[in-house]
Amino acid sequence: MSDVPIKKLEPKIRQGLVVILTGNGKGKTTSALGMALRACGHRQRTIIVQFMKGDLYSGEWDGVELLAPLVTLHHTGKGFCGIEGNPYPHSEHRANAQEALLLVEDILRRDQCDLLILDEINNALQLALVDLEQVKALLALRPPHMHLVLTGRDAHPELVAMADTVSEVREIKHAYRRHIEPQPGIDF
Amino acid sequence: MSDVPIKKLEPKIRQGLVVILTGNGKGKTTSALGMALRACGHRQRTIIVQFMKGDLYSGEWDGVELLAPLVTLHHTGKGFCGIEGNPYPHSEHRANAQEALLLVEDILRRDQCDLLILDEINNALQLALVDLEQVKALLALRPPHMHLVLTGRDAHPELVAMADTVSEVREIKHAYRRHIEPQPGIDF
Repeated sequence: MSDVPIKKLEPKIRQGLVVILTGNGKGKTTSALGMALRACGHRQRTIIVQFMKGDLYSGEWDGVELLAPLVTLHHTGKGFCGIEGNPYPHSEHRANAQEALLLVEDILRRDQCDLLILDEINNALQLALVDLEQVKALLALRPPHMHLVLTGRDAHPELVAMADTVSEVREIKHAYRRHIEPQPGIDF
Repeated sequence: MSDVPIKKLEPKIRQGLVVILTGNGKGKTTSALGMALRACGHRQRTIIVQFMKGDLYSGEWDGVELLAPLVTLHHTGKGFCGIEGNPYPHSEHRANAQEALLLVEDILRRDQCDLLILDEINNALQLALVDLEQVKALLALRPPHMHLVLTGRDAHPELVAMADTVSEVREIKHAYRRHIEPQPGIDF
């Protein structure tokens, strides 16, 4: 529609960034998914490791198949630990999250992607499914070129201090408060 | 990795939602892109109309090609009106945005998608490239099944009042404040 000349940025210094998406509003995981889509435009390789999520279908599981082989998603969890209706004890959630950490460590050591998204890891930390020292150890393994995105509520202040870019997504209003059911394409 | 049974939600009442993503932090457009990716998993059709954007390459332009024909993106603008280095007068930006509104009206009247993203329309409104009454008229044309997402800073309070779900993305910190250049895969 528009006939303007298009510029393309090329940073003099390329570097991987650590990004945290936290807060109580809608749009943290969703934003990380958008980064994966954007990274595809640069032919970057993205790996998404979802902590806790795994017992409830979400559209991104099939959506990312369209971005294969550039994007890979692992949902490693058994649902949100401690919420109503979730039948698994803390120990099982923790064992699961610990297994996911091994996967992440392997991805980092083998430098397998340009963008690594650890979805809901902030919650996993807050719920003591993983430990702060473990997450810090992962950050220390990050190859300098690799972007690392951590999502989930209640980001730990020490991780916020270590990150380059941090956004807090605040709920101003949400449909579910008016008893509107979660809708496909928006909520899952 | 996990062997849990997977549930799939199916709302008793399906309805389109109006979602606003606003605030000064990173992750509004990105979140809308993530919704497009998620919607693909439900085989929903998404159209993204970017206001103002169009003079600076961003990875999503090529990223969404991988989601064709489910996702279509139109960048209609000549860059951010009024920012340093943008050579176009307000009248040209407004003419452009007005043309984009016609495109949006056509999409709504012909019911051409399940998810319609009007990227940066909040800014376009704030900069008087489009008028509040025009945006409200578009909202009134929305088919009940269609999700409509409005992004950009400074969302108008009347639109916030009309929306179902509103998130404010707040900047806690941003790499550019430490003079780190925008990085592909994260910032564009």
